[in-house]
Amino acid sequence: MIEDPTVNHPGELNKLDFEEFVEKLGNIVEKSPVVAAAVWSKRPFYSLQDVHKAACDFIDGLPMNGKEGLLRCFPDLAGTLARERRLGSESTGEQRSAGLLELTTEEQTNITRLNSRYKTKFGIPFVLCARLNKKGAILRGMKTRINNCREEEIKTGIEEAKKICWLRLVDALQPEQVVVMSKL
Amino acid sequence: MIEDPTVNHPGELNKLDFEEFVEKLGNIVEKSPVVAAAVWSKRPFYSLQDVHKAACDFIDGLPMNGKEGLLRCFPDLAGTLARERRLGSESTGEQRSAGLLELTTEEQTNITRLNSRYKTKFGIPFVLCARLNKKGAILRGMKTRINNCREEEIKTGIEEAKKICWLRLVDALQPEQVVVMSKL
Repeated sequence: MIEDPTVNHPGELNKLDFEEFVEKLGNIVEKSPVVAAAVWSKRPFYSLQDVHKAACDFIDGLPMNGKEGLLRCFPDLAGTLARERRLGSESTGEQRSAGLLELTTEEQTNITRLNSRYKTKFGIPFVLCARLNKKGAILRGMKTRINNCREEEIKTGIEEAKKICWLRLVDALQPEQVVVMSKL
Repeated sequence: MIEDPTVNHPGELNKLDFEEFVEKLGNIVEKSPVVAAAVWSKRPFYSLQDVHKAACDFIDGLPMNGKEGLLRCFPDLAGTLARERRLGSESTGEQRSAGLLELTTEEQTNITRLNSRYKTKFGIPFVLCARLNKKGAILRGMKTRINNCREEEIKTGIEEAKKICWLRLVDALQPEQVVVMSKL
């Protein structure tokens, strides 16, 4: 559940045509503008939570392979794209905030090995909201989550994608506002 | 229904990991790598038709706002992106083959007005497989389809998106092969 009493004004959002809406919110779910494009059908919105709920409803309504597909569009944490500085702007900021763009050689080796093991075991990348974690916690999370079952990891990954979606949504609409996330 | 007896070999497709698969087929549906990423879950494939069917099944399984969302990710035919040469490579080739990148001033004025009316009326862009049509037929199609009801247009747009998907799939996997499409 998301509680954020400071964010209650969808502002001009309801006035946007679908092209403007997708232009602004197209990457609230990584490389999946279809999510924002589907959400547009649910106007009018009375709060940012409303927009987020419409995105979450869409994601929850996907069949299992659709949920897996959404997760597969996320880049690895501290993966090749990150090392080569080829991440999208949102992912760059998120991974940087967690310290993932400045790893020691040992940390990089560990995370590369864990990413690979995770993808081989589950057929999806390890998805976690980097902005709500630091690199130490992320590494510990990878070591723990890799022992879970596949269904559990798809569920967890999707919930993490929703947290990322919320933060990107807030950024896209209220970049000047410091958002207090009391509970995700 | 798609009949194409010349395309029956998915070749190396089943050996790809999900990252390679999405890299290769990510744009079989415009700006929606989630489709290819979801299709990967349905391996193994015994023919290209199999891959296409998995993509179509995924699309058909989307809720109505998801279908609308998919269509909203397509660029206008002869729209601003086309005029400014900012389309993706697949769309550029498709629109060029229909003659949409070389319009007379009158044709451009007509198509711009029709695109706009269509989007205002239906809340989706006019989607049509440009490679199976020429500009004259496209303009006539726009003038006819704009009189349809919304549900009919979503259905027609999705069927056109599936044809585009098929041709992009064949291109991505068998670029050297001339494909005979006896019936789409």
